[in-house]
Parts: sequence; structure tokens; C-alpha cells
Amino acid sequence: MSTLFLRTLREDPADAEVPSHRLMARGGYVRRAAPGIYSWLPLGKLVLDNVAAVIREEMGRIGAQEMLLPTLLPSEYYEATGRWTEYGDALFRLKDRKGADYALTPTHEELFTWLVKGEYSSYKDFPVVLYQIQEKFRDEARPRAGVLRGREFHMKDSYSFDIDDEGLQRSYDLHREAYVRIFERLGLSFVVVSAQSGAMGGSASEEFLAETPTGEDTFVRSTGSDYAANVEAVHTPAPPAGSVEGLPEAQVHRTPETPTIETLVDFFNAAGLGRTFTAADTLKNVLVKTREPGSADWEVMGVGVPGDREVDMKRLEAALHPAEVQLLDEADFEAHPFLVKGYVGPNALLANKLRYVVDPRVVEGTAWITGADKPDHHVMNLVCGRDFTPDGTVEAADVREGDPSPDGQGTLYTARGIEIGHIFQLGRKYTDAFELDALGADGKPKRVTMGSYGIGVSRVVAAVVEQCHDEKGVVWPREVAPADVHVVGTGKGEQIDVALRIAEELEQRGVRVLVDDRKGVSPGVKFTDAELLGVPTCLIVGKGLSEGRLELRDRASGEQEEIGLEEAVDRVASAVAAG
Amino acid sequence: MSTLFLRTLREDPADAEVPSHRLMARGGYVRRAAPGIYSWLPLGKLVLDNVAAVIREEMGRIGAQEMLLPTLLPSEYYEATGRWTEYGDALFRLKDRKGADYALTPTHEELFTWLVKGEYSSYKDFPVVLYQIQEKFRDEARPRAGVLRGREFHMKDSYSFDIDDEGLQRSYDLHREAYVRIFERLGLSFVVVSAQSGAMGGSASEEFLAETPTGEDTFVRSTGSDYAANVEAVHTPAPPAGSVEGLPEAQVHRTPETPTIETLVDFFNAAGLGRTFTAADTLKNVLVKTREPGSADWEVMGVGVPGDREVDMKRLEAALHPAEVQLLDEADFEAHPFLVKGYVGPNALLANKLRYVVDPRVVEGTAWITGADKPDHHVMNLVCGRDFTPDGTVEAADVREGDPSPDGQGTLYTARGIEIGHIFQLGRKYTDAFELDALGADGKPKRVTMGSYGIGVSRVVAAVVEQCHDEKGVVWPREVAPADVHVVGTGKGEQIDVALRIAEELEQRGVRVLVDDRKGVSPGVKFTDAELLGVPTCLIVGKGLSEGRLELRDRASGEQEEIGLEEAVDRVASAVAAG
Repeated sequence: MSTLFLRTLREDPADAEVPSHRLMARGGYVRRAAPGIYSWLPLGKLVLDNVAAVIREEMGRIGAQEMLLPTLLPSEYYEATGRWTEYGDALFRLKDRKGADYALTPTHEELFTWLVKGEYSSYKDFPVVLYQIQEKFRDEARPRAGVLRGREFHMKDSYSFDIDDEGLQRSYDLHREAYVRIFERLGLSFVVVSAQSGAMGGSASEEFLAETPTGEDTFVRSTGSDYAANVEAVHTPAPPAGSVEGLPEAQVHRTPETPTIETLVDFFNAAGLGRTFTAADTLKNVLVKTREPGSADWEVMGVGVPGDREVDMKRLEAALHPAEVQLLDEADFEAHPFLVKGYVGPNALLANKLRYVVDPRVVEGTAWITGADKPDHHVMNLVCGRDFTPDGTVEAADVREGDPSPDGQGTLYTARGIEIGHIFQLGRKYTDAFELDALGADGKPKRVTMGSYGIGVSRVVAAVVEQCHDEKGVVWPREVAPADVHVVGTGKGEQIDVALRIAEELEQRGVRVLVDDRKGVSPGVKFTDAELLGVPTCLIVGKGLSEGRLELRDRASGEQEEIGLEEAVDRVASAVAAG
Repeated sequence: MSTLFLRTLREDPADAEVPSHRLMARGGYVRRAAPGIYSWLPLGKLVLDNVAAVIREEMGRIGAQEMLLPTLLPSEYYEATGRWTEYGDALFRLKDRKGADYALTPTHEELFTWLVKGEYSSYKDFPVVLYQIQEKFRDEARPRAGVLRGREFHMKDSYSFDIDDEGLQRSYDLHREAYVRIFERLGLSFVVVSAQSGAMGGSASEEFLAETPTGEDTFVRSTGSDYAANVEAVHTPAPPAGSVEGLPEAQVHRTPETPTIETLVDFFNAAGLGRTFTAADTLKNVLVKTREPGSADWEVMGVGVPGDREVDMKRLEAALHPAEVQLLDEADFEAHPFLVKGYVGPNALLANKLRYVVDPRVVEGTAWITGADKPDHHVMNLVCGRDFTPDGTVEAADVREGDPSPDGQGTLYTARGIEIGHIFQLGRKYTDAFELDALGADGKPKRVTMGSYGIGVSRVVAAVVEQCHDEKGVVWPREVAPADVHVVGTGKGEQIDVALRIAEELEQRGVRVLVDDRKGVSPGVKFTDAELLGVPTCLIVGKGLSEGRLELRDRASGEQEEIGLEEAVDRVASAVAAG
């Protein structure tokens, strides 16, 4: 530490919102170079390398082959799959001196697909799993929380190529198992949640979330099972469909002064109809417009949800991805005079050939109070499957604590986490775009199917700190720690020389050592730094040295023990071996 | 090799001009993704990692600390030193979603300086040497020769910070020694040449050039010593200055029809002046204009060189860097009517306060035939130091085979090489820009001085191939090779099983193995691939196996030897250990 490029900070950086950001800055692990862009100082680089080493080992175990692809790619690759447009502002774009368009790569599905197409041609060549650990770029609108949400960050991205769906499932399962091992080795507490696949265009996909109260991803878990999912991925259990036979006729009512669901329910409850209504008996129709990527045209669409629910725009957007979604504005209503604001019902939409999709709870045989498509009027007993037939269902209604778990066991509650890994069954989106075929055993070309799998390497470092710290600093799990042992020499005698000698002996035994050999720095400062840096084991060569006594400290438990000088190397080595 | 993501090519790629490009493409080490932008396939990644590992070890030996900085940096860093402008089209530039300017980093002097300023403040903190191995970007006008001159490439860049010039010299010397060890370990034949420092703004600097006939850097060497230098860095030995006393008066002659130096010399030789002239007795004045970075104004300047030499624009540009240099055009002559084209002499320039610089051979007491500043007239016996006094000297004249070596020993000849490393004493250009001071022992702030040192990691791989190949393929030096031994199983019996078993035993002994376990591939194809890939040792498990005989081949020497099955592992291990 007398020569290490490290100066710890006593104060939290002004912009640090979360513990990992605070502690990684104070411990001199990273320094900010620009919004969402960080430099990794020597200890930070060691930690990053340790995480990458664990990932490499486990990727090697599933037969994945490491490569290294460029970070600067011509737009053509992304245009082939439409992502040049889809990515929008999140893609860093530039032109070279000849005016050609380039992207800084956010992920590499396109180039990997193109490379496999260049090398492979027969079913015998597959499966293959390829990966890299590399910088990635995303022009986040709001980079935040240090390296947790950066604009330049480190990713492990791998891609599987298989000849059929069963192969893809195997590659996916292998990745899932490898990810579980990786995150366990890194000392993380995590859950695997069902996920929407975002801009990847995939179908089956799961996220690995490190559980922390500061996580920016919300997810739901079940009280009665292992079920966990992104809010966007929660499937609403549909009640059984019923018969429409014998249900009362639909009736239009004049319903003045019922601007809200609550006033509407009150109106019907006061109308002497012989029954009690709740908001769940009403059908709220929210009007949106959608636009497909690359298209200039917006399409108006109605979304029907039970009146006791709100439309969760994030869920709706995820359901309609990659289309853009916006609420209608005044001009849209003027352009569609049959849409009577506040009184829109299914039938005006359907009669005018606009798409109308509903919550899965709106099944055949259910009767609803909803808009009658004229001012101050609602209709009751409008029966799904008899009086209107929606164009389909959509997951748009908000998910609430206490909702039944989709797996039928228990109810849902909300938790927070950091996305540290993501596995996707992409299917054939990319192989279709690049026409990646393999000649089958039958001599016919077969379209290859693909998976993509990511781990945010720099984000994992921060997630570990989020989970492994106390008020004094970081408490590294051993596989991630920048060193196994922090040997602190303090005092004006031969303590520093002895500390250096012990450090050398430990290094010869393969122990990774950080040694505090600074002169003129007080014991208090050295201990504070050791706690802040968070190396798992600390050996103090201090004032007890004259009697041959050293102190062994465990960072996680805080346990301190006096040991003899002659046993120090053995004791440290066995503490390290114990993990 | 049955699962390795590798398909060798029988044909050279159409755009491959040099052996390394041809062989790295044919051997499946790299694939082109865009002009000057390459993907490193699994074997290529191994080779790249091997080079990086050697560099890391040797940087560690000189106490350098590894970090990892971002590749995307705000323009502010480069504006602080003027490089945002100086770099011109070679810098990849982009804007983020908020319109802020960013660069893809070509080198990192600015951010390292800024980081050191953030952490360090006292003379006791220094020296420090920091480095990283990372992608770099340069928008080359003509990317060529595969990874030799790419637009995205891998660099080791390190930076030393010292409190005084002696410290800088020490840091520089340590790097020089480390570079020699690195390139020796990598099996390269190289020379260290004095260099101009290009856009770095430095003073003392040397380049490490791998000697190859295909290298794009020309340099000169001495027949009589170790002297080697870039052509731009050759210092012309100046003759001793003489006395101007007693020299004949200057005489203006009417010299019609002398458009060239040759006709001019002929004219004076035919004029009956009692002596013989050569082109070296004439003084050729070349007019250029220069513009400082960021300036809008061009300044006209005269460059005087002996008439038997040409002005080498690359040498002149290097001498005047960072200013731009252009020859005068017609409009410039019209704007300066005192410059009589074809008859420009020193005096019109000096009388009109234009800068006039001369070749170092134009010393006081030398007499010249040169332009008389009026049409059809030249002057002879124009004496430097009497009739004109130049504003200084400049290294602009071309350097020729047979010129005396600047160190006084032998004469110069030309050779070609690939720049694989570059070491600079930058001095205080960057520390001045960022005001990086350290409080000295005397309590006064002292400006830190800096060095910067680069190795082109991806280019080194190509340079190794340029030097280490034959007509059949690559011949890797052991430290660079993707494996120590290539075990080839061929035949329809148990050869492949035996090859795999031997491979496993070798791996357990720490030997890096590539095993050709492909079924249905002919022995000829396997041998051709093994030679193309270039692993140093090859063990063939072929038809001799039934009699317990294998074949051991050395890729470099071509030697083949029959060995017994039971001794195979030992024999390979000792071949590997022998290097």
C-alpha cells in the first residue's frame, strides 16, 4: 500500500445514492470519468478480473468457447435485424471519416450469427456455444448508481446455436445451471425470475436478480412456492369461461355525473337494481395508439381491464413490444369521433374495426358495466362472447400484492433486486435475418435456433457490494476479494519489515496478499482502511510483536484472535483454505 | 477440433496483402467484421491472451499497476490538451443522446493524468507507473494488412509519472528494458530506433520495430554501429562552421534556361569561372506554408536544402509537428509578388520577414549558388553568415543510403519494419494541461513529468506471424502459440481414442494441448491443418499405433521422429520444457 495507486476517501461522493457506489468510490475501486462511465483502479481491476475468472471457468465447464469481437460495428449488422431502428436513443451511433454509420455494440447477436454462418454449414457442426467478456455500451437516459447502471460496462455475453428446439432447451438449461454456479461462487443471494425479453425479441427467458432493497428491478414472489417473475412477465390466471345462455339482456342507462369508476359504481348501487356492484364489475377501456418499429403510422387500439385495476403501462409496453405505445391525445379523439371520451365501450371500437384486447379475466360469459359509446350513458350486463368478442387478451392490468400466484400456490408479494444475469431462448429471429441454415441429416437445409445469455460483470461487482457490506465498508466474499489477506504493519519498530516478510511467505504459498507497509500512517487510519477495503482476513503486526503476538481478524464476523508470530503463516493459509 | 469453432481456409482471402493477414485468416485466428475491424476466434483469442500475459508479467516486474479505463470519453479531456483538434479525422467522434461530444479513445494520456491528479498530491507519492490492456480506436484513412493496421485494435498503454527529469529517465529506462524482455520472450527479431513522437507531443522517444520486408515503417541503420532511427528522426551531421573572412563577393549572374538544378550546374560549369560545381553547391529554396492546430492562418516559410537533396515532406512535417504543412499554390505566389518562382533566394524571404530555415549542412562560412529573387537570375558565392542569416535549421532534406551515420560510425542503409512498441518521454505537455503538481520536500508545488509507452498487442500477434511462418503456415514461438502440442489422431482404429487419452495426460501435466479428434477427416487434411495452425510440437497417433509407434514432429525444424506409445507423454513434456 506504500506504492499502490489508491487513496481511500473519508467522505461519500456527492452523487452516490447506493452503498455499492459509495463504498466502491471510497475504497478507491473505481473513479467516475463521465456520467455512467468509470475507470477501474488497480484494486477494482483485480475484483473485476476475479469475477471474470469465475465466469470463464464455469463457461468452460459447459463447453463454451471464448472469442473477442469488436465493439465498433457497421450499421449493416443491426439493420439486418431491425435493431438499428428498434434501439432508438439507447444506441451510441457514430460515423467514420467516410460517413459510414457505426454503432458501439450493446449486444452481439448479429455478429455472432453472421460468424457462425461463415464457418458452419452442417448439422454435425452443432451445437456450439460461443462467448466473450467485453465492454458494452448503452446510452442510458439516466445513468445512475455508479457502475450499477453505466453507459460503458463489462458484460459476459454468450450465444448458443442449435439445430432444433430440444437442443436450444439443452443449451439454455446448461447456461441456467452455469449461472447458478457462478452466482453461488460469487457469494450472491439471488432469485431466478421469469422475464420478458426486452429488445432481444425472444420468447422463453429468465432473469437472475440479486436481492437487495436498493435494486431498481421490481419483481413478485409467491408466499406459497418458488414462483418469482418480473412484473412484466406475470400471467394473470383466467377464470373458467361460462355459458352466455340465460344471462340478462344488456341495458343502457343514463348515468350523469359519473366521471370515475367509484361514482359509476355508486350510481348503479343506488339505482335499485337488486344487487351490489363493485369496481370489479366494471370494464374500463383505455385507448392507446401503437406504432411498429420503422413504421410511420400509429394504430389506435382499446385495452379493456376490470375497473378495479389500472393499466400498467410498463406491462402493456412489454406485451406489445417492439411496438411503441402512447395514450391518445385530443387530436386522436377528434380524428375518431365515434370514440366518446369517458364513455367508450367495446362496440364502437369493434364496429369501427379498431383492435380491442382485454385482460385475461374478461372471459366468455362475464357480464360488465361499461361505456355505451354516447355521452352520459353506460351499459350494464354487456356480456363477453354474446354482446362483444374481443380481438384477444393482453397482460396490461397492474399486479398487486395479494394477487393469486400464477402457479396456483400462494399469493404474490413484491421484492426488489439487481439484474445480474439474463438468459433467453431467442429462437430464430436472428438466424432468420441472416438465413443461418445447416444442412440436415436428410440433406435439407434447416434453420438454426439460438439462445443468448448475459452477465453484467461490472454490475455483479456492485451487486456483491450491495449484499456484502456493513457500515464500515465492503465485506468481500473470498472469490471476489482483491486479496485473501490484508497484512497490516503498524508501529515504529520492525513491524513493517515483519509484515513484508510474512506477506512474501504467504505469496510463496499461493495466498493473495495486500500488505499495508505505509510509514507515518496511524494504526487507526490503517484499520479503517482495512475495514473499508474489505479483504476477508486481516493480519495485524502491531505492538504485540515484541512479545511475538499478532492479531488475526475476520472481516465478516468481526472475530479477533491473538496468534503467535511463528504460526501466523500457517494460520492465515488455513483461514484462506477454509474459504 | 471436433467441437472447436474453427474452419481453416484453403484459399487466401482476396484482400490479403501480407503473410500474417493471409495466414491468420486461413488458420481461423481472425475474421474481418468491417474495414480494419476484426473478430478474434477461439484460437486467436488464446494467442492474444498469451501475448497479453507476457506483457503483464514484464510490466509487473517493473512495478507497473494494471487498471482499466473507459474507451468512451467526453471531448473535454482531449480539449484540455488540444488533441480534440489535433487528431483530426483519425479520431472517432460521437454525440450522446444529450448532444455531448465523445471520443473513442486512441490513447489515454489525458485521463491517466487527470486520475493521478485526483489521487496524488505529494512528492512522496511518486513515481508511479500505471497501465492497461484495452481496445483502442483510430479512424485510419487506409486500414490494411489485417490486424496490422486496424481501426479497432488492442494496446498495452502505460504512463509514468515522476517528480523530476531523472525520475522520468529511470521510468523510461525501465520500460525500455521491459520492452526488450517482452519482445525477446515473444520470439521477435526487432530493433530500437530513435523516433519522432508523432501526435504525442513528446521529446525523447524510441520505437521498437519488428524487422520484416513487408513492414510499412521505413528506418535507417548504420553499417558501422547499432544506430537505427526512423527516417524522420535522423539528425544530419553538420560540418564545422567556417570563417566568412576572405571569401569572394557574391555575384549575380543572368542564367537563362536553367529550370533545373542540373541545367543550373551546367551553366556555371560552362561559364569559365575556373572551378567545377556540383548540385551540392547550389541551395534550393522550397516554399511551404504552415498552420498551427486550431489556427485559421497559414504562414509562408522558406526551406533551404542543398540542391543535390530533395525536401522529404514526411521529415519536414515531423520537424514542424503539430503544425500542418503544404506547398505554396499559385494564389500564394500572387499574394507574395516578391517571391519569384524558380528564382527564390534567402534575401527576399528575410527582407520580407518570412521565416527561412535551412538544412544543418548550411552553416556559417558556406557559399552557395541560389536564386537572386529576379527572373532568369541566380547569385553565386552567397555566403551564409555574411550575405544571409537563416532563422534556424530544419531536418527536411531526404536521407539516403550511404549518408554518414549521425553517430559518426559507418554509413546509413534502409530497412523496413513493423512498429510494435513505442516509448516516449512526454515531459510536461499533459501535466501542464491538467496542472498536475506535487508538493515537493521543500513545501513548494512541483510540476510532474510524464512518459507514455505503448505496445500494439494485436499488431504484435501479426508481427510474430510475419517473422515466424513458412509456405505451409504459421510457426509459432512457444510463448505465443495457442497450444504447446497438437495431438493428431488419424485412422479408423482406436487412434482418436488414444489421442484423446494422451491429450488428457498431457493436460494433467500442465501442457496446453490441441487435439485433432475429428472423425471422417483424412490424414492429409489433418496434417495440412496442423502445419497451417503452427503449434510448435505435433504428435501423430496414426497407422503406426498398432505397433505402438507414434510420430513426433517439430514445426519449426520440420524434424520427424518415431517414438514409442509409452514414452509419448514424457517426450512431449520434455520437448515443451525445452522451449
